[in-house]
Amino acid sequence: MSHRHGTRIERWALRKVLECAGYPALRVVVQGGESLSPPGVDPRHTMLVKDRRALALLMLDSEAGFGEGYAAGRIQIDGDLIEFAEAMYQAARTVPRRGVMARMVSRWLEWTQRATRTGSRHNVHQHYDLRTEFYQHWLDRDLLYTCGWFPSPLSSLEEAQQVKMDRICRKLGLVAGERVAEAGCGWGALALSMAQKYGVSVRAFNLSHEQIEHARRRAQSLGLSGQVEFIEDDYRNISGNYDAFVSVGMLEHVGPQHYRDLAEVLRNCLGGSGRGLLHFIGRSRPAPLSAWIRKRIFPGAYAPSLSEALTVLEPGDFAVADVENLRQHYARTLECWLERFEAAWPEEAQMCDEEFLRAWRLYLAGSVAAFRCGELQLYQVLFAGRDCRRELWTRERAPAQTTAQAGEKPGSEAWNAAMS
Amino acid sequence: MSHRHGTRIERWALRKVLECAGYPALRVVVQGGESLSPPGVDPRHTMLVKDRRALALLMLDSEAGFGEGYAAGRIQIDGDLIEFAEAMYQAARTVPRRGVMARMVSRWLEWTQRATRTGSRHNVHQHYDLRTEFYQHWLDRDLLYTCGWFPSPLSSLEEAQQVKMDRICRKLGLVAGERVAEAGCGWGALALSMAQKYGVSVRAFNLSHEQIEHARRRAQSLGLSGQVEFIEDDYRNISGNYDAFVSVGMLEHVGPQHYRDLAEVLRNCLGGSGRGLLHFIGRSRPAPLSAWIRKRIFPGAYAPSLSEALTVLEPGDFAVADVENLRQHYARTLECWLERFEAAWPEEAQMCDEEFLRAWRLYLAGSVAAFRCGELQLYQVLFAGRDCRRELWTRERAPAQTTAQAGEKPGSEAWNAAMS
Repeated sequence: MSHRHGTRIERWALRKVLECAGYPALRVVVQGGESLSPPGVDPRHTMLVKDRRALALLMLDSEAGFGEGYAAGRIQIDGDLIEFAEAMYQAARTVPRRGVMARMVSRWLEWTQRATRTGSRHNVHQHYDLRTEFYQHWLDRDLLYTCGWFPSPLSSLEEAQQVKMDRICRKLGLVAGERVAEAGCGWGALALSMAQKYGVSVRAFNLSHEQIEHARRRAQSLGLSGQVEFIEDDYRNISGNYDAFVSVGMLEHVGPQHYRDLAEVLRNCLGGSGRGLLHFIGRSRPAPLSAWIRKRIFPGAYAPSLSEALTVLEPGDFAVADVENLRQHYARTLECWLERFEAAWPEEAQMCDEEFLRAWRLYLAGSVAAFRCGELQLYQVLFAGRDCRRELWTRERAPAQTTAQAGEKPGSEAWNAAMS
Repeated sequence: MSHRHGTRIERWALRKVLECAGYPALRVVVQGGESLSPPGVDPRHTMLVKDRRALALLMLDSEAGFGEGYAAGRIQIDGDLIEFAEAMYQAARTVPRRGVMARMVSRWLEWTQRATRTGSRHNVHQHYDLRTEFYQHWLDRDLLYTCGWFPSPLSSLEEAQQVKMDRICRKLGLVAGERVAEAGCGWGALALSMAQKYGVSVRAFNLSHEQIEHARRRAQSLGLSGQVEFIEDDYRNISGNYDAFVSVGMLEHVGPQHYRDLAEVLRNCLGGSGRGLLHFIGRSRPAPLSAWIRKRIFPGAYAPSLSEALTVLEPGDFAVADVENLRQHYARTLECWLERFEAAWPEEAQMCDEEFLRAWRLYLAGSVAAFRCGELQLYQVLFAGRDCRRELWTRERAPAQTTAQAGEKPGSEAWNAAMS
């Protein structure tokens, strides 16, 4: 193949890449070869593609091709990775339909990563059974791996995570002695906090062996083993009756084909009188997650639109009491994680290879961008059974301030006294 | 027909009535004849059926039969009407399926009351073109005919309605000079308040001639005619570009078959950068409204589940920012209306006949019960287009207290400064 011919192919491939990406303000450079940016646009970012194989994959599937190329170091981005990702999301919105290859990859992943009982165990293992030390490098001290709630822009990640847990407990109106089921409990921070601060007893479920082991050790060291039971099992096996149900960051792993399983679990657990809270990554309308994220980071994950998520609640006649969208809080949470992740790179590099770390950097930076620009949402949905008599009367029960104590409920006390 | 034979039929009919109602704690008495209550149950209410025609209608369709009979004075309830209605709603939940006649009536109303352009005009006329004096007897001074927001159980109806309007404006983050579209503006209170307190310009749509005339007179007397335009037209004809869209108590009249019309209106009005608020009566899961309510009070009305209502927003990629369920506030609002309605009965009786007034009493009392026991919900949904940069960062922007001034936005100012 002559140099001239190769050059022509390269330019054609570059044009395709920009077209599939919705003509972002980007200059794409093939190392030692051609470069291109959309005509009439002042490029704000530069993407360096180091070889033709990476270019070909990028052209065939811009999402997965970029992710794989970036992780392998065959693609580099000049400048801020978060801003680059934001620009890509914005431009992609103008693309009417994704390419054939991209759609095939997406479908293939959907099929192979189905969240059946066996599939879920495998999917969870791939992400959450990484060694706890890896997460300890960049999460807060209690290892909360979900969106925090920042009372102010200057709040620390540690504070945001404590406030988040407190707000959830107050939204649920937990009272000492009540029984709570938690589906997808991570390293156990919320379950332990509910037990310690609100005096409830908790049965917390999780498929990750690594996380459950860690959570049990923490319960023991806090003297809470009698009050909090950590169970290594599927959410579909939750049995017993509970006053409240809580799930933070698990619905994303359930998969819409299995929402009716979760709906049935809720009905069995809560009957008509319980209440609950679902906290999950969602979307403004139905769409699959990035294929690369599903391939490398979260196998089988799906972020539902709010109406899709409501199919978990409406069959059981659970009424939505309150929905809060925390997407800006998640962007801030992820910024904190990414900052710590970068700072700990040298230590992390002793446990993980470069490709793994570059993939995680892209996942964290891309997620900041996705929540900033509304590509992803974070919904916190409070709901109550039709016979539940412990509902939110006013929003005062979930105060914005962290200073309020667990026992005091401004407003609602007066209401409950007057209305009962 | 012998007396004995008639008696046997009566007892059979009474059994049917109790069975269809789900065996509530009720004694049904036929005047001068038989009486029955479910075996082993201590009846808390007594229903007096004055003649056999009323009994037959009650048996064929418990909802419509009861409503018609009560309005005509052929059925009377001993004791508190609200508590009676609550007991009926609770018992009805145990009934697996409604009778053939009831289902036929329901379908027939659905068909004849379709909310097409012509149908909507007719439906709205029947309810909202009643003389304004009638509503003035029992609504607040600004004639808000939707759920208020009670800061405390002792708050007055007037205060609750002002707080409600203020909270809506603050949720939307209205800023002086912005353009707002309102769909279904009633007698104009919210449009005038937005203009007066927040300095926005409003185009407010309503199909009720009586209400629009009243609203225009109020705008003139307040010197706001240049800032607020009241337009007697269908929501489907809203044109122009707006910063915000608001609709309080109109979605109930749109009908699920026409949600895509409203979705298109939203897309056209707001593009990607606007935001809006929908406030509507809903349900915890899809179901039609009582046939009697549709026949006598709100022709063509439908209270959607939250997931049904989201089909108005998701096609336009509007993200839900916040959902508040105000059902207990609506129960309280309706209690206030009913109290005033009963007190003004003598004056009302000079304008309306007894049957009309008894029908409205039943509608108001039944609605208190429906919101109290969760048969109905009141959702307030705040949403934003994908390019909207004026989103809620925290809940502080919609404070619970009325004392906060329009200009001050605790919390969010700091956020916006820090994040922009």
